[in-house]
Amino acid sequence: MNTLEIAIYDALDAIPLVDSHSHINPHAPASSSLADLLGYHYYTELVHSAGMPREKIEQVGISSEEKVARLFESLHHIQHTVQWSWFEELSRELFGFNEDSIDRSNWQLLYDSAERCMQRPNWSQTVLERSHVTRIFLTNDFDDGLDDFDTHRFIPCLRTDDLVFHLQSATTQQRLSKCTRSHLQSLDDLDRCLGSLFVHFTKHNARACAISLPPWFTPRRIDAKDSTAQSAFRRLLQGPLELNEEDRHTLSYWVFWRLAEYCSEFSLPFDLMIGVNRKVYPEGVYQGQDLYDSRWSMIQYAELLNAFPTVKFPISVLASVNNQELVDYAWIFPNVIAHGHWWYSNTPSFIQHDLRARIDAIPRNKLIGYYSDAYKLEFILPKYRMYKRILASVLAQTVCNERGKSESFAIELGQQILRGNVDEIFFPNG
Amino acid sequence: MNTLEIAIYDALDAIPLVDSHSHINPHAPASSSLADLLGYHYYTELVHSAGMPREKIEQVGISSEEKVARLFESLHHIQHTVQWSWFEELSRELFGFNEDSIDRSNWQLLYDSAERCMQRPNWSQTVLERSHVTRIFLTNDFDDGLDDFDTHRFIPCLRTDDLVFHLQSATTQQRLSKCTRSHLQSLDDLDRCLGSLFVHFTKHNARACAISLPPWFTPRRIDAKDSTAQSAFRRLLQGPLELNEEDRHTLSYWVFWRLAEYCSEFSLPFDLMIGVNRKVYPEGVYQGQDLYDSRWSMIQYAELLNAFPTVKFPISVLASVNNQELVDYAWIFPNVIAHGHWWYSNTPSFIQHDLRARIDAIPRNKLIGYYSDAYKLEFILPKYRMYKRILASVLAQTVCNERGKSESFAIELGQQILRGNVDEIFFPNG
Amino acid sequence: MNTLEIAIYDALDAIPLVDSHSHINPHAPASSSLADLLGYHYYTELVHSAGMPREKIEQVGISSEEKVARLFESLHHIQHTVQWSWFEELSRELFGFNEDSIDRSNWQLLYDSAERCMQRPNWSQTVLERSHVTRIFLTNDFDDGLDDFDTHRFIPCLRTDDLVFHLQSATTQQRLSKCTRSHLQSLDDLDRCLGSLFVHFTKHNARACAISLPPWFTPRRIDAKDSTAQSAFRRLLQGPLELNEEDRHTLSYWVFWRLAEYCSEFSLPFDLMIGVNRKVYPEGVYQGQDLYDSRWSMIQYAELLNAFPTVKFPISVLASVNNQELVDYAWIFPNVIAHGHWWYSNTPSFIQHDLRARIDAIPRNKLIGYYSDAYKLEFILPKYRMYKRILASVLAQTVCNERGKSESFAIELGQQILRGNVDEIFFPNG
Repeated sequence: MNTLEIAIYDALDAIPLVDSHSHINPHAPASSSLADLLGYHYYTELVHSAGMPREKIEQVGISSEEKVARLFESLHHIQHTVQWSWFEELSRELFGFNEDSIDRSNWQLLYDSAERCMQRPNWSQTVLERSHVTRIFLTNDFDDGLDDFDTHRFIPCLRTDDLVFHLQSATTQQRLSKCTRSHLQSLDDLDRCLGSLFVHFTKHNARACAISLPPWFTPRRIDAKDSTAQSAFRRLLQGPLELNEEDRHTLSYWVFWRLAEYCSEFSLPFDLMIGVNRKVYPEGVYQGQDLYDSRWSMIQYAELLNAFPTVKFPISVLASVNNQELVDYAWIFPNVIAHGHWWYSNTPSFIQHDLRARIDAIPRNKLIGYYSDAYKLEFILPKYRMYKRILASVLAQTVCNERGKSESFAIELGQQILRGNVDEIFFPNG
Repeated sequence: MNTLEIAIYDALDAIPLVDSHSHINPHAPASSSLADLLGYHYYTELVHSAGMPREKIEQVGISSEEKVARLFESLHHIQHTVQWSWFEELSRELFGFNEDSIDRSNWQLLYDSAERCMQRPNWSQTVLERSHVTRIFLTNDFDDGLDDFDTHRFIPCLRTDDLVFHLQSATTQQRLSKCTRSHLQSLDDLDRCLGSLFVHFTKHNARACAISLPPWFTPRRIDAKDSTAQSAFRRLLQGPLELNEEDRHTLSYWVFWRLAEYCSEFSLPFDLMIGVNRKVYPEGVYQGQDLYDSRWSMIQYAELLNAFPTVKFPISVLASVNNQELVDYAWIFPNVIAHGHWWYSNTPSFIQHDLRARIDAIPRNKLIGYYSDAYKLEFILPKYRMYKRILASVLAQTVCNERGKSESFAIELGQQILRGNVDEIFFPNG
Repeated sequence: MNTLEIAIYDALDAIPLVDSHSHINPHAPASSSLADLLGYHYYTELVHSAGMPREKIEQVGISSEEKVARLFESLHHIQHTVQWSWFEELSRELFGFNEDSIDRSNWQLLYDSAERCMQRPNWSQTVLERSHVTRIFLTNDFDDGLDDFDTHRFIPCLRTDDLVFHLQSATTQQRLSKCTRSHLQSLDDLDRCLGSLFVHFTKHNARACAISLPPWFTPRRIDAKDSTAQSAFRRLLQGPLELNEEDRHTLSYWVFWRLAEYCSEFSLPFDLMIGVNRKVYPEGVYQGQDLYDSRWSMIQYAELLNAFPTVKFPISVLASVNNQELVDYAWIFPNVIAHGHWWYSNTPSFIQHDLRARIDAIPRNKLIGYYSDAYKLEFILPKYRMYKRILASVLAQTVCNERGKSESFAIELGQQILRGNVDEIFFPNG
């Protein structure tokens, strides 16, 4: 890093963060042992990919220490990766572990010192403070209780994959009936249930509705009373075997369109995370089974974007080859917001490539730079640091060097990308 | 920029340009107020995307000054973008405006000094000279008059989107009948009309036929006397409601294939600008409604490229993900020429990425570096400068640093890419 | 290159190479005149693309010298390209030709000195030594004799395109019958023939089965006794005109699935080279007719990858836009190995882009850095050097600068990528 990049980085690193997407459990936000950290799918799936059998990694009943010991038999295969660099950085910054390398020879030391840290009272609070995080968005199931944690620190977000894609499952229907205290006998009932979820979530400070979507998904307007949807719903009530693929798609699109309508009615941004195929590798480790087909286009969302001009759509794409479309739809559509660097595109070469394209051409109020996607608080620090280094470097190169703007201009822009827009978009009234 | 890059840039910046694609109006090539410049869709669509209602931007009857005042209420959202850097650079270079920033606090000063410049006699000539531009290709409607401007400075180019895609419109038919003084009663008539357009355009120094094409377009050989096309044409004469989608495609392909035949007969290059979907956002501002689906392939053009080996096809692609296919088809097909960096790919990160790939692998006589796509002369200077900086940097890095060639070698190559090939391809006889 | 890059490069350049994919003829591995080198399709197709008629390049009966003379009439069009840099580097390193440029004015000198070198006894051996190559994989037709060359230096590889895609050709059937000494009357016969090829090849030290695949190919499990496949095979025996497209696909998938089963049984890696369309430009020069459609997805291989967990699949993709999918499938699937930079992606800008993404995220034991794809030994040196420079630079930037690893860590990783993994994957028992 040159002087300019360092100056920008330092300014960005001082900003209190609001993390707009995570999988943090508000009841256990931090880890209780190294196994929680190395059990993150980024490590288990890579260790499995490098050759360790799933059964060995996921054997039931082994201790946390045994699990970590086993993983370290294979973790040397990924010491060069960015995923490993997150673990190294958090070990250094949060646990004070300063060895050159973390490997079979010294992990026990780290394990023990991490355990000591985690057992301290207020460990979560300590991690949040060191990470400069003030608020974190959750990923809530539609029937999550929201009244037993601090919803001003842990912001509820209504995740809707189950409603759109798994409505045919009896479990989903039962959960929905139960949490909304209603019988699901018709589309009207379903519509009312969805509405009551929005009432419930917004009452508890929810700031977004969110969903991950497969590449084939192409939302289309379906009237709430649509007869084809009603027939499909009747067959759904008769049991999942009565539903054909077209029925399932009709119901998916029906529910999705209702969600967008409720987002409009309740002024909730609708986070779209586009491009994932689930269970492409069903023999993979837990959460290490999903991949994708990058052949989809933002044009599949044209009808939606036109139909809901007042709904803000923070959009994440799974593959970097879809980034230019995202950039250009955000350039043209007022309601499209480029949102973070998701999952398989959350590596430095893709972040740099995608971020440069965004900064070149999108209005500055339509870029949400990053979110952690973390399951445990400890990962927020290293992931955001990775991003902030790249952001500082891209700002220095494009805005300062190429376009002659000042350091302070770059810092202000970086602040807006890193924090300001999260506030504006998700907390428009403060 | 390092010393080598500066040396290359300076040499390139001294070259008199021939701009191979623009939308300049030869009767009013330069702007008459700042509203002409900031009314460019690159600004209105970004300001709209950043949040300003279309109605406010496009309100009928407001003065130029009021329009500019309104735009500046929102233009701070794009001060970091490359699009804004064009405006800043032209304001500095053409109007002598040297403030650090152009914003709500000082635009009136710029407005006034720009107006004084534009009111000078020969302002167009002044801009051309400062921009080192000697010739500019136009984008002419097929029924444009071509006898009332200097066609050696403003080179006519037969734009054919209306003929290929809007033949079903009564207006198109009437315009075509009128300008060719013929009745359109059969495909034979239509064929003759097309031929007479080529006679008319080439007589007036036209140097290219051009068209923009949607992603689904897949040209196929249709015989001039093809019976399916004849039936479709009969239905077209009965009125647009008689045409189904297949008819429309048949006629599109029929006309397109005739155009290629006439390009062959009249030795005109056929500029293909591939990949745009029109009116994806119909509520957008004027010219800010078009987007795209990047899922198309150069292989859709294989039949065409094989059928017309003597026609030169300068090809532009809308999205950077299509650039490698363009590179590789230009690497193999003698008649494919990589042409500029179009529209949504005309931003530094994509230009750099796409240009490196082209310079790595395409014969040097098959690269036309850049065109302005400008509507007003003032934009030629900053757009070309952006490109020349990137070209200098890419040449220094690839040809000099990686492949050990001399500075003079890089400069000669840059000259050929920037100017020489335009002459060779569009003016083969001088 | 900075000091760190040079140190890494020097260490990598000292490594004895095993080239995991080439088209070397073990009976004539080196060239006998400059025409062998410049007759490489990378030059003939570019010279043709730059304007020279195929007939002039491929005229029958002209001497080697005349052929080279003709090519030099046009080779100045590609002096800036990376393909030409390979020729310049080999001329310098192998023939001691140190002129600044090789062109019409001095090629005769090079021709003569190359000829003198090539006529020396052991020229092949000399080239191998200077290139640090110890073993080279071949591309063998299924009926190649394998008993008349050193199969420990020139490693047989069973190339199977003919079996999967050209079984309907009488020639293919006759070659197969002949080399396996069997009659092909049923699928069972065919199955036995395939098995006997694996016996034959593995007996002669074959270390891989390989195939290039078109974009549409989507392998699916077809049982060896499948009745649809049996019907299709009966029609094939009746003559190629009896086969429809579905039959051909069924048989392609049937053969392909058997090959995967035999790879499993014989513990052979199965090299998949995905994405090429053959004869897109049928009027092109020899081997200069193939292009592609980049719209395919790794998801087309999900069923295969799940079905054969014990088969290693070193996978090459033709276009850089498919690289992220390759990275991510290698990240998740234990049996997917990223393999080299193939053909149209074997240029510096794509190698750099694709390699960075791989090094960011894939376990280190699943990256085979490079293969030469060469037809003549002389090209191995410059192609690998190009790669090693990029590898050194990417390692310095990502692993050292971004992730703080030491120079020796980077060198060890580079050694594994360049050589170690080839040994582990193709020679697991040494």
